[in-house]
Amino acid sequence: MSTPSHGTRLDPWFDSYAERAHGMRSSEIRALFAVASRPEVVSLAGGMPNLSSLPMDHIAEISARLLRDRGTRALQYGSGQGEVETREAILDVMQYDSIRVHPDDVVVTTGSQQALDLVTEIFIDPGDVIVAEAPSYVGALGVFRAYQADVVHTPMDDDGLIPEELDATLTRLKSEGRRVKLLYTVPNYHNPAGVTLSLERRPQIVEICRKHHVLILEDNPYGLLGFHSDPMPALKSFDPDGVIYLGSFSKMFGPGYRIGWAAAPHAVREKLVLASESAILCPSQLGQLSIVEYLNTWDWYGQVKQYRGEYRTRAEAMMSALSEYLPMCEWTKPEGGFYTWVTLPDGLDAKAMLPRAVKNLVAYVSGTAFYTDGQGGDHMRLSFCYPTPEAIREGVRRLSQVVRSELETVELFGTNIRPDAEAPPREGGNGRIDTPTPDQV
Amino acid sequence: MSTPSHGTRLDPWFDSYAERAHGMRSSEIRALFAVASRPEVVSLAGGMPNLSSLPMDHIAEISARLLRDRGTRALQYGSGQGEVETREAILDVMQYDSIRVHPDDVVVTTGSQQALDLVTEIFIDPGDVIVAEAPSYVGALGVFRAYQADVVHTPMDDDGLIPEELDATLTRLKSEGRRVKLLYTVPNYHNPAGVTLSLERRPQIVEICRKHHVLILEDNPYGLLGFHSDPMPALKSFDPDGVIYLGSFSKMFGPGYRIGWAAAPHAVREKLVLASESAILCPSQLGQLSIVEYLNTWDWYGQVKQYRGEYRTRAEAMMSALSEYLPMCEWTKPEGGFYTWVTLPDGLDAKAMLPRAVKNLVAYVSGTAFYTDGQGGDHMRLSFCYPTPEAIREGVRRLSQVVRSELETVELFGTNIRPDAEAPPREGGNGRIDTPTPDQV
Repeated sequence: MSTPSHGTRLDPWFDSYAERAHGMRSSEIRALFAVASRPEVVSLAGGMPNLSSLPMDHIAEISARLLRDRGTRALQYGSGQGEVETREAILDVMQYDSIRVHPDDVVVTTGSQQALDLVTEIFIDPGDVIVAEAPSYVGALGVFRAYQADVVHTPMDDDGLIPEELDATLTRLKSEGRRVKLLYTVPNYHNPAGVTLSLERRPQIVEICRKHHVLILEDNPYGLLGFHSDPMPALKSFDPDGVIYLGSFSKMFGPGYRIGWAAAPHAVREKLVLASESAILCPSQLGQLSIVEYLNTWDWYGQVKQYRGEYRTRAEAMMSALSEYLPMCEWTKPEGGFYTWVTLPDGLDAKAMLPRAVKNLVAYVSGTAFYTDGQGGDHMRLSFCYPTPEAIREGVRRLSQVVRSELETVELFGTNIRPDAEAPPREGGNGRIDTPTPDQV
Repeated sequence: MSTPSHGTRLDPWFDSYAERAHGMRSSEIRALFAVASRPEVVSLAGGMPNLSSLPMDHIAEISARLLRDRGTRALQYGSGQGEVETREAILDVMQYDSIRVHPDDVVVTTGSQQALDLVTEIFIDPGDVIVAEAPSYVGALGVFRAYQADVVHTPMDDDGLIPEELDATLTRLKSEGRRVKLLYTVPNYHNPAGVTLSLERRPQIVEICRKHHVLILEDNPYGLLGFHSDPMPALKSFDPDGVIYLGSFSKMFGPGYRIGWAAAPHAVREKLVLASESAILCPSQLGQLSIVEYLNTWDWYGQVKQYRGEYRTRAEAMMSALSEYLPMCEWTKPEGGFYTWVTLPDGLDAKAMLPRAVKNLVAYVSGTAFYTDGQGGDHMRLSFCYPTPEAIREGVRRLSQVVRSELETVELFGTNIRPDAEAPPREGGNGRIDTPTPDQV
């Protein structure tokens, strides 16, 4: 895949880039992930949903019918905001989050990633502050960096965002004269932390943001994938005008369509549509109509329940393997979603350890990817969404060999030895973060 | 559809927008186009391709097979750069433009509109200059505005960009200390002008840009749609390192997949991939694999020739109708593509006339949409791609009634009376341009 940039000698346009582009370069992590994608490596790094239980014959049939009966519409340009029938179908999906809005307030996007990009584009001037959980979704941090936002992390515990800490963070930033534009949060089955914001805290978070006049950006790709339960009410349900809600068909159906959405306050929605038309003209008509057909002709919520069972089985395999092989670590106990967040023993550095893990045929994402301020070296994100339970178990076993070997090194030398002696102990602290690859997010 | 923004009273987040978002608002034009999309109106405004000759049964069959046989891949995330097989298929398509590059240098995007957005994102700081044809594609001007570029127009004649004028423009800008980052050009069957850059001028344009160290952004959605001939060599073929080439499947196949691409110098390609991953993670896997299947299982170039015949018939209908009904106007004679550029008689204003045209059940795009500096009021863009030849003829007839009525008004009062006396005679001159709707571009 990508190789690092080599400067002016090999790039005749080096002097022409915009300010914002100079921070864009391939990280070491990317090169490593090219290796990590080999089949002999167990990847506990990726965020790819497991699609094997989808009713492919039915999907093939409705897709063929769509193209035969309405092909000239399915393959044509459409509305920049997305088709009315897509937006109405999205309202049905959001009912499970207790969200009740008008289809006019929904904007269909190229995955919810594009919605993240559009919201950041319309709200963030360079230097504006976005408050985000510590840790935060790496793909959101990449977008925020592209628009030159300053991200300030605020802590979580096992019940998600801590209201008092958020209030203190916002109060402090205000007293420093900083302009806080957004709170970015993943309330359900957090990526990467695996925790969920408690029901009790939800109205508190909304109220704190209202008090400080901070718009909430609620990102909810995993909400339907609770192992044991339907979703709790979204933040959006407590204050429709104070929250932009992002949803996605990627995890509850399939990401290959690239269809997500934003449900936004009315005036904001208008700007989102204009920005999206500028960026892509319109979302894929084929993707939209295919999804509407699926929702209308299949027990899609039954399929969601099937997914829940599969991910629960995989999460249980990971929890049990962690207990058996990595008792020297701590980890969160997710009630849904794709991830657990592992704390390494003192002295170990997840980023420094990663090349040795990949050499031992297991991959994860270093915790450093999920912060903008250099934290996270003592954490790893492990995902259980894609590999089989057996592969998860084997992956954790391989990981334990690496952790034990690192611990021996620490005992001998007082710290673990880095593979590249010239590199600083941790990336970050300079505003740079690792760029995610699509199979990492 | 959209309604104008009403300020703080109705938008609680009015004070939170980024600088770049304050220029984003729905134009009067958009409201008008909601009316113009009614079935009784003949729209000579849209840029929608005519898809009725596509082999829908075959497309339905290969789509169903793809989902049945490779569904878990087609509906999964993919590479941020696009799949290797898509990029190899794109090389086959670009052969017709005499472009020979490596698949590594191709980035697959959500339509070529996203490629336009990404290139602008990585090269343009606010205030940088982009030189563009006078007139230019409205969707590109919208992107350039979103990134706060200054667009400087340079003239064309019936053979496209005029090399001497381009050289003079670049020399003048340099002497003024302006930073020119890009030349944006649509060399084939120009949107909106309908002209094509001559073979003789192509190496001259490339040489002038090389001399001034200006990167060329060559946008070529219509190149395969010449009425009588295969494409001339692309600018990219003369200097692969000096040109970013944008291509699209939207006009040679169908826009509903939302798949386009950029072929860029190697180092630039790397940044495009990083920017695209930040914006959308990856392009639609389903769209990509469907297109590859189509290219591999159908005589797609035969289909392109079929399209050429259909658009030639429609262009001939328009030329003949213009001669019959609008002899008081002038217009360009396109050799391919979707558009002709009409010059109105002295004293007529295309933008002021548009509401009256829509009232007379015919729509076009005012020339003002295609400039950033307030020019264009004496022009209309007429498209012949979508309506039937009979509808085109009827549309031009209705348009002639409006033009004649306007001319009578001019003769009586010395100018045409505007529908809204408070509005300035032309939008523009203040950096604002009309925002395009998807069916307008």
